[in-house]
Amino acid sequence: MKKTFNIGMIGYKFMGKAHSHAYKDLPMFFPQSATPKMKLICGRDEGGVRQAAEQFGWDGYVTDWRELVTNPDIDVVDINAPSDAHKEIALAAAKAGKHLFCEKPLALTLADAREMLVAAEEAGVKHMVGFNYRFAPAVQLAKKLVESGRLGQIYHFRAWFLQDWIVDPTFPLVWRLQKEIAGSGSHGDLGAHLIDLAHFLVGDMTEVIGMSETFVKERPLPSSMTGLSAKGSKDAPHGPVTVDDATLFMARFANGALGSFEATRFAPGHRCTNSFEINGSKGSVKFDFERLNELQVYFTSDDEDVQGFRRVLATDASHAYMDAWWPAGHTIGYEHTFVHEVVELMAALAEDRQPVPNFVDGVKCQEVLEAVDQSIAQRRWVSISEV
Amino acid sequence: MKKTFNIGMIGYKFMGKAHSHAYKDLPMFFPQSATPKMKLICGRDEGGVRQAAEQFGWDGYVTDWRELVTNPDIDVVDINAPSDAHKEIALAAAKAGKHLFCEKPLALTLADAREMLVAAEEAGVKHMVGFNYRFAPAVQLAKKLVESGRLGQIYHFRAWFLQDWIVDPTFPLVWRLQKEIAGSGSHGDLGAHLIDLAHFLVGDMTEVIGMSETFVKERPLPSSMTGLSAKGSKDAPHGPVTVDDATLFMARFANGALGSFEATRFAPGHRCTNSFEINGSKGSVKFDFERLNELQVYFTSDDEDVQGFRRVLATDASHAYMDAWWPAGHTIGYEHTFVHEVVELMAALAEDRQPVPNFVDGVKCQEVLEAVDQSIAQRRWVSISEV
Amino acid sequence: MKKTFNIGMIGYKFMGKAHSHAYKDLPMFFPQSATPKMKLICGRDEGGVRQAAEQFGWDGYVTDWRELVTNPDIDVVDINAPSDAHKEIALAAAKAGKHLFCEKPLALTLADAREMLVAAEEAGVKHMVGFNYRFAPAVQLAKKLVESGRLGQIYHFRAWFLQDWIVDPTFPLVWRLQKEIAGSGSHGDLGAHLIDLAHFLVGDMTEVIGMSETFVKERPLPSSMTGLSAKGSKDAPHGPVTVDDATLFMARFANGALGSFEATRFAPGHRCTNSFEINGSKGSVKFDFERLNELQVYFTSDDEDVQGFRRVLATDASHAYMDAWWPAGHTIGYEHTFVHEVVELMAALAEDRQPVPNFVDGVKCQEVLEAVDQSIAQRRWVSISEV
Amino acid sequence: MKKTFNIGMIGYKFMGKAHSHAYKDLPMFFPQSATPKMKLICGRDEGGVRQAAEQFGWDGYVTDWRELVTNPDIDVVDINAPSDAHKEIALAAAKAGKHLFCEKPLALTLADAREMLVAAEEAGVKHMVGFNYRFAPAVQLAKKLVESGRLGQIYHFRAWFLQDWIVDPTFPLVWRLQKEIAGSGSHGDLGAHLIDLAHFLVGDMTEVIGMSETFVKERPLPSSMTGLSAKGSKDAPHGPVTVDDATLFMARFANGALGSFEATRFAPGHRCTNSFEINGSKGSVKFDFERLNELQVYFTSDDEDVQGFRRVLATDASHAYMDAWWPAGHTIGYEHTFVHEVVELMAALAEDRQPVPNFVDGVKCQEVLEAVDQSIAQRRWVSISEV
Repeated sequence: MKKTFNIGMIGYKFMGKAHSHAYKDLPMFFPQSATPKMKLICGRDEGGVRQAAEQFGWDGYVTDWRELVTNPDIDVVDINAPSDAHKEIALAAAKAGKHLFCEKPLALTLADAREMLVAAEEAGVKHMVGFNYRFAPAVQLAKKLVESGRLGQIYHFRAWFLQDWIVDPTFPLVWRLQKEIAGSGSHGDLGAHLIDLAHFLVGDMTEVIGMSETFVKERPLPSSMTGLSAKGSKDAPHGPVTVDDATLFMARFANGALGSFEATRFAPGHRCTNSFEINGSKGSVKFDFERLNELQVYFTSDDEDVQGFRRVLATDASHAYMDAWWPAGHTIGYEHTFVHEVVELMAALAEDRQPVPNFVDGVKCQEVLEAVDQSIAQRRWVSISEV
Repeated sequence: MKKTFNIGMIGYKFMGKAHSHAYKDLPMFFPQSATPKMKLICGRDEGGVRQAAEQFGWDGYVTDWRELVTNPDIDVVDINAPSDAHKEIALAAAKAGKHLFCEKPLALTLADAREMLVAAEEAGVKHMVGFNYRFAPAVQLAKKLVESGRLGQIYHFRAWFLQDWIVDPTFPLVWRLQKEIAGSGSHGDLGAHLIDLAHFLVGDMTEVIGMSETFVKERPLPSSMTGLSAKGSKDAPHGPVTVDDATLFMARFANGALGSFEATRFAPGHRCTNSFEINGSKGSVKFDFERLNELQVYFTSDDEDVQGFRRVLATDASHAYMDAWWPAGHTIGYEHTFVHEVVELMAALAEDRQPVPNFVDGVKCQEVLEAVDQSIAQRRWVSISEV
Repeated sequence: MKKTFNIGMIGYKFMGKAHSHAYKDLPMFFPQSATPKMKLICGRDEGGVRQAAEQFGWDGYVTDWRELVTNPDIDVVDINAPSDAHKEIALAAAKAGKHLFCEKPLALTLADAREMLVAAEEAGVKHMVGFNYRFAPAVQLAKKLVESGRLGQIYHFRAWFLQDWIVDPTFPLVWRLQKEIAGSGSHGDLGAHLIDLAHFLVGDMTEVIGMSETFVKERPLPSSMTGLSAKGSKDAPHGPVTVDDATLFMARFANGALGSFEATRFAPGHRCTNSFEINGSKGSVKFDFERLNELQVYFTSDDEDVQGFRRVLATDASHAYMDAWWPAGHTIGYEHTFVHEVVELMAALAEDRQPVPNFVDGVKCQEVLEAVDQSIAQRRWVSISEV
Repeated sequence: MKKTFNIGMIGYKFMGKAHSHAYKDLPMFFPQSATPKMKLICGRDEGGVRQAAEQFGWDGYVTDWRELVTNPDIDVVDINAPSDAHKEIALAAAKAGKHLFCEKPLALTLADAREMLVAAEEAGVKHMVGFNYRFAPAVQLAKKLVESGRLGQIYHFRAWFLQDWIVDPTFPLVWRLQKEIAGSGSHGDLGAHLIDLAHFLVGDMTEVIGMSETFVKERPLPSSMTGLSAKGSKDAPHGPVTVDDATLFMARFANGALGSFEATRFAPGHRCTNSFEINGSKGSVKFDFERLNELQVYFTSDDEDVQGFRRVLATDASHAYMDAWWPAGHTIGYEHTFVHEVVELMAALAEDRQPVPNFVDGVKCQEVLEAVDQSIAQRRWVSISEV
């Protein structure tokens, strides 16, 4: 039986737009799903949030998130404000008995993330964390191949998230480059996605050791706090970059696999290469987000003379979510991962179960982030169980 | 100044869904655009169209298209019913003073297509034809490179549209395989897109010669008239396939370039390979719809030791339409081509000009389709000016 | 039992070097093969041929080919002089009872080619033609897949040979651009390879229709008759280009398949793209000479969720000829195709059978070349049986 | 002025064949080079070495390497026997005043490698080490782009050497899996190549930390000591694998760049993926040995709308060594890297200078290998200056 859940969303920039669109698309492509009702949107700047409400199709808006989380009409609080605001909102919302849908990273610190999980569990609400890459059909296929044993025992997971938007040293000091707001740089922004994919596809890690660098240590202050496309001026006053430009780490998994991770914003030519490869005793898979409809798949059991990585275009009806979209061969894009994420959110709420990934996954990701940070500070291997 | 145009749409299957979604997405991503108001949807099956109206978000529905085209509230009639119905609807809608947005191919015959163009022109309405592939940002980039002269004089255009959905001989005899409804097979369905891209990117053709084949001449009758994913049974009664499974042709362009075209539904491994390459005196470009965010670009002027095709990911703000979507590197999918198409439709209506591509382009495409058909029947080169 | 055959080779430029190297490499990598003894090399320019003899490792040299073909020590005459000299040499050599190994195209005309075949047959000698691309292991794999039925019934063969070495209009009028020496341009030089691959992989054609163009009609005369890397000057006196820059044609095969062929020297970015694709009822293969170690292979019988073109690196021991070279994954290059060609030549001589491909294949290729030429001249479909 | 150098080679298996072929090819393709005279080959098994001498084209053979290194006719001793024999031979040959050409890794330990360098320097002989991958034209292009500053300041070097020949647990315990003969497993065999490429392309490292694993800890004993293609039996008696199946490490370079390295023999689908990527402030390059003719190149200075990795086919005359081979677009293979290596060896001898790479490079590679080993044993970062 079909249901409706009223959404209140805090944040209306990049992620706010992606989430709004997902809510809008859902009923059209997944008509059997419970319906997210776009009730209330919240932002501090009244002009901005009013326009967003209209443009994205929300019923109303508020400028104080406290008003939203206590509004009795709201069933689900969607938190995609900057990372430093996540905890306070989540705690208040949980206290108000709202279900939580929070963007990654859950919080600026592991302690905060754990506090959020505890609060959600104590409040008995549902909680989801926005690791959207899980929801690419090609990634779902990778999961299916691993879980069904078709790749055999897993030996290697290697992953890299490469971007190039701040290679230019005159790119300004936006909030994502300031530790007190963003928590960390490429590590928490990009590496967090890799860590979650590793958890999803391979399982828990036992220990890690990392390395980190800030290549450009000072940048021009931005005239206004703008987005990814901000322009800087080399003549403007400069401030210190307080987050990592690049973080690498190695890991051991509980199942014996070896992991290699690299997140950087200093890889010219890579606009958004979120890529992983898994090697198992029976086969391998490779994924690159810049070609998100594709999974490269290899099986050791293929006939001897025709072994090779297959380029699987994960757009057939047999691939997760794809029967809802277009005929085979008609690709989907980035935003569809959010639609699928909301499919899961709605299904979980309708079925009265925890969505996956949820705050437990968010905390596990944060544990690895923090263990890596410790391993960098202390120049040693750090067990996940230590943090 | 911003305006609203009321849309009445006839058809609610594959294309109806794609168009509906485009209307829905437009205000969110292109807020400066005039707004398409989803007023009325029409289909013969009341149960089906009622559900579509609700699912896609139309204000109301009718089951008789005549009712729709004469409804005084409607500004634009969007025709995506099966091809054999296009003409009658378009003529009636034009007569009623409605703007026309018609899926390709315009009509089953060139004569019909011309009649539609004349009707639209005499009625003084705007008219657009749904060649959506023009609106992929990578294709727009190809156009820009050709038009600006960055590829020099054009020597070659080669294009192929390869699919594999009917390779299985037990796939049933759906309407797309019946000449009286579909007009033609791969030629009109797939080849039409290639021809339009050729017109868009290279210009007019002067003469053509083709070759055609129906590899599987009889197929099981479908239990019900279903879509692309229909299943057949080899024990069911069979009927004759009356359209082409594959059509190839060669062409000369007015500017001296040579053209090579191939459309087939018998290419295993190709779900939807709509691909072209252009070679000019200063460079080349290559496109494949299965990787629609990419354009391969080569320049002869590159430094001698680093010449090579560049894989341009056409997702930067500098690429057409892309500043409306996500940050660089975040790809879009098939359905976005329709959103961009509607951006053009709305812009043209708001600016009181003809959209591009319009019925003139639709007729030109049909001229080539028909010239190729004649060349096949008569086994000779046929001038476009003959038809 | 192992044997030795004495080779006399006429020509010492590009092909002469490739053949010489093949003779030298053979005993090292294929020690079980009969041995080609590099006896005598012939060229008109004494200085040039003397140096070639020494550099390539020939026992001796002559400047008059008649002397070579009548030398009683010679078992095999290897003809890789310019195309206009093939016939006269082949006839004389056959008359002298020598086995023949002739570069493609066999001759400037079909009549000449047929005369050569008759002469070889009447003399009872062995004859081979230099279609070296057959001998790439990836091409051999394609052949195996077709012949064993693993691709099912063949529907399509499409092939293109794209180069760009004469795109610059100041590139000089070398012999390959002069009809009286080269016979034809891209058609006979590049198209001939595609035609032979089609014969090898799909079988006989029944009818063809072509189209041709010379984009740059005059070019500077070269200061000296140089190779592919010649430089021209736009201020030098110009002469007419008398061969085709590009030739395209369509074909029907005897087995019902449709063929599409394109050969051009005006495709910037393509140094040497010799590429084909075959679509059959059970699968497809794709090949590109610029990645000659790879074959893309697709099977319709693969599990539904992991269907996709496999990139087979044809360097395993299970691939033709590869156990003679290096461990799996260690690629080979262009020149290896000649080594494999000579493996076949030696095997045939040792086993007292005709090598494959031989002059019959050379004549068949020439028939198609000529039928295409006629179809262009007469603007109509031409049956292969007509020529 | 041209010279000849007499070669005496110890070892006649995989590397012996590759070296022999290089000596044979050199005079044909690089006629200006000094000539390596294939004088004497040495192996312990008389039958085997006699056949190799004949097959590869050596003037004579011996079964005792001491005889070879003291033979007054020999100018250069080429050492490609198993790694555990390198040191003793090199020391004796240096003492005898012979130039040294030694396969990698130089020795089983850093101490041994240093001893070899000292011996060579004290003897005043020339010394070269066989890091053949440097000599792929695409790698040479990468070097040129880095060195000329066209990639700007280097931020990242990531490299992986992935193979799959021992994934099957029944693959036998060949000598490469035994520490006392091979020294190490994937680390010294594959990782050594990556380390040398890093030194060649980016420069010295300052500190490293590694991780290592042996996934299959026991394997069937081989019936005879065979090569890479050996077959095992799961019923045969088993012995312990004493080397690493996979080794990963992270590194800091003296110039501030971050390095990531992975060598494994447990990556199904990768026959021989020796791959690296370099990111600099002005651009990036990517290389994969399975497509060794290609370098992917990206420049931040490209026009905004056409930025993308260029697939440079490094077969033009402007690319290192390529004017000696075939026309542009005609690819070379694995063995050509050895030919180019020998070009350098002969040039250095003729010019009375040290070849590059030489034992200094061999020692530097060994330093990193050993530092990584220490870092694994001690679970900490290890400075290169420590070892």
